[in-house]
Amino acid sequence: MTEPTVSAPPLPRAHLTSKRTVAALTVQARFLSAAREFLTAEGFTELLPPIIGPVTDPGARGAKQVDIDYYGHRYKLMTSGILYKQASLLAFDKIFHVAPNVRLEPLETAVTHRHLAEFHQLDVEIANGSREDAMDVAERLTKYAVEHVLSNAQRELEILDRDLEQLKQVLAGPYDRRRHSATVAQLRDLGHDQREHTEIDWQGEEIISAAATRPFFITDYPKGSRGFYDSENPDEPGTLRNFDLIFPGGFGEMMSGSARESDYRTLLTRMRETGENPAKYEWYLTLARDGLSPSAGFGLGVERFTRFLGGLDAVWQASAYPKIPGELRP
Amino acid sequence: MTEPTVSAPPLPRAHLTSKRTVAALTVQARFLSAAREFLTAEGFTELLPPIIGPVTDPGARGAKQVDIDYYGHRYKLMTSGILYKQASLLAFDKIFHVAPNVRLEPLETAVTHRHLAEFHQLDVEIANGSREDAMDVAERLTKYAVEHVLSNAQRELEILDRDLEQLKQVLAGPYDRRRHSATVAQLRDLGHDQREHTEIDWQGEEIISAAATRPFFITDYPKGSRGFYDSENPDEPGTLRNFDLIFPGGFGEMMSGSARESDYRTLLTRMRETGENPAKYEWYLTLARDGLSPSAGFGLGVERFTRFLGGLDAVWQASAYPKIPGELRP
Repeated sequence: MTEPTVSAPPLPRAHLTSKRTVAALTVQARFLSAAREFLTAEGFTELLPPIIGPVTDPGARGAKQVDIDYYGHRYKLMTSGILYKQASLLAFDKIFHVAPNVRLEPLETAVTHRHLAEFHQLDVEIANGSREDAMDVAERLTKYAVEHVLSNAQRELEILDRDLEQLKQVLAGPYDRRRHSATVAQLRDLGHDQREHTEIDWQGEEIISAAATRPFFITDYPKGSRGFYDSENPDEPGTLRNFDLIFPGGFGEMMSGSARESDYRTLLTRMRETGENPAKYEWYLTLARDGLSPSAGFGLGVERFTRFLGGLDAVWQASAYPKIPGELRP
Repeated sequence: MTEPTVSAPPLPRAHLTSKRTVAALTVQARFLSAAREFLTAEGFTELLPPIIGPVTDPGARGAKQVDIDYYGHRYKLMTSGILYKQASLLAFDKIFHVAPNVRLEPLETAVTHRHLAEFHQLDVEIANGSREDAMDVAERLTKYAVEHVLSNAQRELEILDRDLEQLKQVLAGPYDRRRHSATVAQLRDLGHDQREHTEIDWQGEEIISAAATRPFFITDYPKGSRGFYDSENPDEPGTLRNFDLIFPGGFGEMMSGSARESDYRTLLTRMRETGENPAKYEWYLTLARDGLSPSAGFGLGVERFTRFLGGLDAVWQASAYPKIPGELRP
């Protein structure tokens, strides 16, 4: 009944005219509409963040930043909206963005089914919020969006041959929370050689995701695995007050967030610890020196979330013009 | 009562904490929410277009494109979404985007109050639509959005000290339509030395905008003033089937659109006529060769529209992180 899925994006005409592509992009539009509805009702204001600036998020693991010549000065394409999210809390207490990000991911990620060199993030930030506040919004947003798509994209889910039971599992009960250290132990029990005190590797993420039936949070990543803006737990030095939301069925990491670091001196220290030159962050550090709001928030990969909603084989199927790392596509 | 407006953007903290900035960005969020509501109800699907690609819209007058190194190949930052809008009609009949664009505008535009090097466009495209269809959507969208903002941002309009009568004038009757040639004659009558057969210059645009009390369309620009994708009128060679929507009060051009050229051979000719090398447009021309939908559409400057809604002195007041051409801002 349905067209077969394929492992690499077809050429633009075949991709754009595929019924599956049309269904996936429709699901994506419904999802974003639901997310906006949910966040607006919760008092969040949507802002349009810059996509170029003097500096960007250095945290993207292994991905290269893109330089541009901006009136004779080196600017960057945004790899995430984190710096602007923290700054924008000077204007509003609760904000969100839907914005493109560009990360020149290493060529080996072309086969993960989870990476695009150009993608979109739904970015949420809460002034004076805790990590738990951010996790709560992430969980309720997920449930609201899935419920909305189940009710408003039935035809599209049918075209995509979506297993509706897997979608409905997202709606039940609170999501489990496991510490990073417990996840490492779990992976080792499963025979995967996951290193301690470091990021869960792609393969490990896929293994725990495949083993799960419902979304769950991994919390408390070790320092060194994430950017300077994830705050360190003062009661547990070396551990960050952050989280990932992992989806079941091999869909993997869907959101990533934390309670942020906003203290000027600590930011300077954390930048130096992570090998970043504070001088590059002049505009951001000037704001921090004069006072940023403490906050918590998260970023959600729009194409990844769409992949889950549609039960798609690969994240590129959730983009009208997918950019697989290393491939020269429009 | 209100803070004084200023002629150049203050530093980020002062800008973000200004009551006027918060009010302007709130008006912008309400406007975009209304635009999405209107377009979705009209059957349009919102897509997320690429911001980087092998080629971009060459039509932006006088602005420089931004090059990037994409896995060893030269890519561009999008100056507009036009190429993707036409292509996406292979998937959907009615689409829209809200997306960032980057144009390194010449330094002399820093004083127009109407230019930012980074801005956002609301882009609309209608398969098998005529120029008149696009103008109709542009006019109804304007009225819907202004009505919505009048009802849902009263407090913000008060903070901005907005002249509500000027806003309400937008709601009445059909918008006048004047040909480009008539506009040239009008400007000459007003003593402005507007050249024939070419783009209305910035000063001319400001003069006719200031002289108007309601929005009006300028139609039928001469060939050579716009990009290859604005279709030529077969009954009137040398004239394009396009339009600008000009707002009163000196706010100037707010939207720009046309019936598009979609014929492969004509596109090749038009590219060559406008000094573009067709080889650069390989992906787009491949789609055109095998058939693109005829279409019509327009782009709306989100910050410019917000400027009008809020009655702001300058377009930078409608951006959280304004990038005045040539200034090194985050």
